Amino acid sequence: MTTNPQGGPFDPQPDDLGAPEVVVQRLPLYVRMLSQFEQQSVEVVSSEQLGQQLQMTPAQIRKDLSYFGRFGKQGRGYNVRRLSAELRRILGLDTSWNAAIIGMGRLGRAVAAYPGFARERFRIVAAFDADPAVIGARVGDLPVRPMEELAGAVQSLDIKIGIVTVPAQQAQVVIDMLVAAGVRAVLNYAPYSPQVPEDVKVRAIDPVLALQSMTYYLKG
Amino acid sequence: MTTNPQGGPFDPQPDDLGAPEVVVQRLPLYVRMLSQFEQQSVEVVSSEQLGQQLQMTPAQIRKDLSYFGRFGKQGRGYNVRRLSAELRRILGLDTSWNAAIIGMGRLGRAVAAYPGFARERFRIVAAFDADPAVIGARVGDLPVRPMEELAGAVQSLDIKIGIVTVPAQQAQVVIDMLVAAGVRAVLNYAPYSPQVPEDVKVRAIDPVLALQSMTYYLKG
Repeated sequence: MTTNPQGGPFDPQPDDLGAPEVVVQRLPLYVRMLSQFEQQSVEVVSSEQLGQQLQMTPAQIRKDLSYFGRFGKQGRGYNVRRLSAELRRILGLDTSWNAAIIGMGRLGRAVAAYPGFARERFRIVAAFDADPAVIGARVGDLPVRPMEELAGAVQSLDIKIGIVTVPAQQAQVVIDMLVAAGVRAVLNYAPYSPQVPEDVKVRAIDPVLALQSMTYYLKG
Repeated sequence: MTTNPQGGPFDPQPDDLGAPEVVVQRLPLYVRMLSQFEQQSVEVVSSEQLGQQLQMTPAQIRKDLSYFGRFGKQGRGYNVRRLSAELRRILGLDTSWNAAIIGMGRLGRAVAAYPGFARERFRIVAAFDADPAVIGARVGDLPVRPMEELAGAVQSLDIKIGIVTVPAQQAQVVIDMLVAAGVRAVLNYAPYSPQVPEDVKVRAIDPVLALQSMTYYLKG
C-alpha cells in the first residue's frame, strides 16, 4: 500500500479491504455532513442531498458507500442516524484514541489547546520536546517530557497517534522515533514530506501547501 | 468546475486549462520537494528520485508535469532550480498575496502568528472579528477590525484570500461575506463544509478530519 504523505490529492490506492484510500478519506466528511443533518433533525437523506452539500455527484457517494456495505434502500434514502453510526464504527470512531504531541513551541501549544480533538475523542495524553528549557514545563494538564521517554510512553499510555509540531529540520528524526516506538499514524504539522514505512499513515496539516494550490486559480 | 470543499480527497476535475485540480494540488508538493533538493545542492533530479521521495510513481510525476509544458530532456532528468522556478511561476508563487483573517479567538491568533505564511509571501494584512470586546485590540501589528469594514478592506488592501478561523456556526455567514466582497480563495479552519459558488476555491485545514481518516487503518 502506498502511503500518501500529504493526506490529500493522491490517486486512489486500494487498501486491503478493497476501499481506495481516497474513499476512506472522504468518509469523515460524510460523517460530519450527517452530523449537520442530525442537528437539523433531518431523519432521512438522499445521495442527491448529500451530494449537493458536498459538491459531489450522487453516483460518487453511492459508489463510495458501496465499498463498506449496503446502506439504505433503493430510492428511500439513508437513515441519517444509522448511517452516521455505521460510518463512525467503520472508521473506528466509536472508541477514543490516545495521541502524543511532539514539539512544544508556539505551534505545539496552540495545537495542544485545540478543543476539537477531545470533542471527537482524540485525547492528547503526553507532550514531548527536546529542549531542556521546555522539558518539565506544563502545557495544560501535561508535563513536557524529554524525547528519551517517548518509546516508553507510547507503550504504557497506549499511544496510537503522533502529532508532530517540530520544525521541518527535525521532522524526519521525530517521525522515525515515533515509528520505531510502534506508532502507525502521524499528523504532521511540519512543512516537510517525511519518508515512512508502507504501513504507516501520515496526514499533513499544512496551510501553506493549501494556499499554494489556490493561487493557481487566482492568477490574472 | 466543481469546487472541492475539503481540498483533498476528491476525484480529478479538469480545470479550464486542462489540468485536473488534483494535479494542481500536487504541484506545491513538488515545489517543496525541489526546494529540499536545492538546499542539498542537487542540480538535476529524475522523476524516479522525485517519485521515491513523494511515494509516487515516476510515470505519475511525468504525467502531472506534462499538463504544464515540457520540462527536462528525455533521460536527462530535471534541472532542479529551473523546474522549481517554472512551477512557482505556474502556481502564481512568483508574487506576494494579501490575505485577511476572520475570527481572532485563540485559533485566529495562533494562525496569525504562524511564520510560514510570510516566508512564502502570503501576507496577512487585515484581521476581523464580530465581538466588540475584541475589536480594536492588536494582534501582532494588526488592529482587529469590525466585520462591517471587511468589504472595504478587501478592495482597498487588494485582499485575495480569506482565512476563516471562526467557530463552525459562523463559518457560512463569514464565507458568504468574503465571497460577496470578491474573495475567490478561502482557507477554512472551521470544522464545517461551506457552500460556495463554482468559481470560489476552498481548502480546509482540519486536523480532526485528518485523524478520522487514519483511525480506519488503526482498528484492531
